[in-house]
Amino acid sequence: MSATPDIPTELTHTWHITAAGCSAQGRLPLATLVERVIELATDHANMIGVGYDRLITDGCAWVLSRISIETSRMPAMYEDYSLTTWIESFNRHFSERNFEIRAGNEVIGYIRTVWVAINISTRRPADLSGIASLADTVSSRRCPIAPQPKLRFPAGSTPRREGSYRFLATDIDFNRHVTTVRYVNLVLDILPVSVYDLRHVSRFDIAFRHEAVEGDEWVTEAVESPEGTFTVAVRSATDPSREFCMARLILSDKTN
Amino acid sequence: MSATPDIPTELTHTWHITAAGCSAQGRLPLATLVERVIELATDHANMIGVGYDRLITDGCAWVLSRISIETSRMPAMYEDYSLTTWIESFNRHFSERNFEIRAGNEVIGYIRTVWVAINISTRRPADLSGIASLADTVSSRRCPIAPQPKLRFPAGSTPRREGSYRFLATDIDFNRHVTTVRYVNLVLDILPVSVYDLRHVSRFDIAFRHEAVEGDEWVTEAVESPEGTFTVAVRSATDPSREFCMARLILSDKTN
Repeated sequence: MSATPDIPTELTHTWHITAAGCSAQGRLPLATLVERVIELATDHANMIGVGYDRLITDGCAWVLSRISIETSRMPAMYEDYSLTTWIESFNRHFSERNFEIRAGNEVIGYIRTVWVAINISTRRPADLSGIASLADTVSSRRCPIAPQPKLRFPAGSTPRREGSYRFLATDIDFNRHVTTVRYVNLVLDILPVSVYDLRHVSRFDIAFRHEAVEGDEWVTEAVESPEGTFTVAVRSATDPSREFCMARLILSDKTN
Repeated sequence: MSATPDIPTELTHTWHITAAGCSAQGRLPLATLVERVIELATDHANMIGVGYDRLITDGCAWVLSRISIETSRMPAMYEDYSLTTWIESFNRHFSERNFEIRAGNEVIGYIRTVWVAINISTRRPADLSGIASLADTVSSRRCPIAPQPKLRFPAGSTPRREGSYRFLATDIDFNRHVTTVRYVNLVLDILPVSVYDLRHVSRFDIAFRHEAVEGDEWVTEAVESPEGTFTVAVRSATDPSREFCMARLILSDKTN
């Protein structure tokens, strides 16, 4: 399947990393990278006619369901970095959108995302088969990183409780749910700065489950298995069956 | 005092507000505005030769000590907004830097900041009298908002405890202290989304006191007096005499 010539199947944005916008390690924070991914996906979807304005005519909207990031390093302070996005596939219920990350003249990683169309009244999956033009947006470009595995605690493991608090006003986005940025930071916060000084998050996977709202009390739980691989859950403190998200961090020694 | 012709006494940057970058109210988050203020101040200081590279030759660095923001409204989703900065005054120990905020073709507010030069080894105030060129950077432009008052709880009031947790990995900046963004959000989080839906933060003042580090447990305390004016402290939970910051919010009814 290939795109019709008049639809731009790729879009690239470039950003600059300021000193004030860095992590403790002087790098692009993972949460900022995720914010850029959402921003670029939104712009590209609008540009090709499958954005907010089109979906809302059917009472639908895109919701980010899964994200997987694999990098050899993170962009450093004062560096320019860019993301290029394209759509790999779609069906009636969801769309797979990928990203290439460049810093300097180097490709430093790739990102896979899965977006689900939901009915904004019911918050249940919607049917996109009415949007025929989606077929024209698919690129033949492939993404070299593995799809996201099913995220779950290793069999027989006992998760350790890491943190607990509640979601407050500045954690909430325009849709009145907890921001993706907040979830990403809660997951990263299971480890101290000293670990991130020495080790790089070479792979980060997160799957969003139940949408949390203002006032929800949360707990984070984590298991390290095997060494350097952390599975993390953010769940409701009052109803532990209610998982807000599951994530996985794979750490590798820093080489740059 | 007026600037020599070859030193640009003002600098303006413009940004765009994306949907993903909005608050629950669909506006520019106050914490993002503060991040932009630090970014633009850093760029302008570098441009006029009193930035990080110059101060570090004397073992010094600028630290943001106080910020006061007064706005008639906050920029809205998809709007462009700009900040223009200039230096109002300096002396041996600190510098006053102001900002005008525009959105669309309208001036929507002003910001006053105070920056202190510290010795980065001792974290104590430094002496800038060796940097003669600072005198050439002062603009004759004035800032129409009132300077920051001394921030303290009203006499006889009993602060209410609002929240408590601890600072973790993603709260920490490259200098290994808690980020300004985190403090601003902790202050705003004393009130729920429903208040910010109806009322606008027309004035926001914050003064940074002791620098918090990773692992520090914090509490927020607040007093409302008079109606719509909140004084807020973020302090150490284990040593209440250790104030991280004091802030004041003035809310007004939304007119736009």
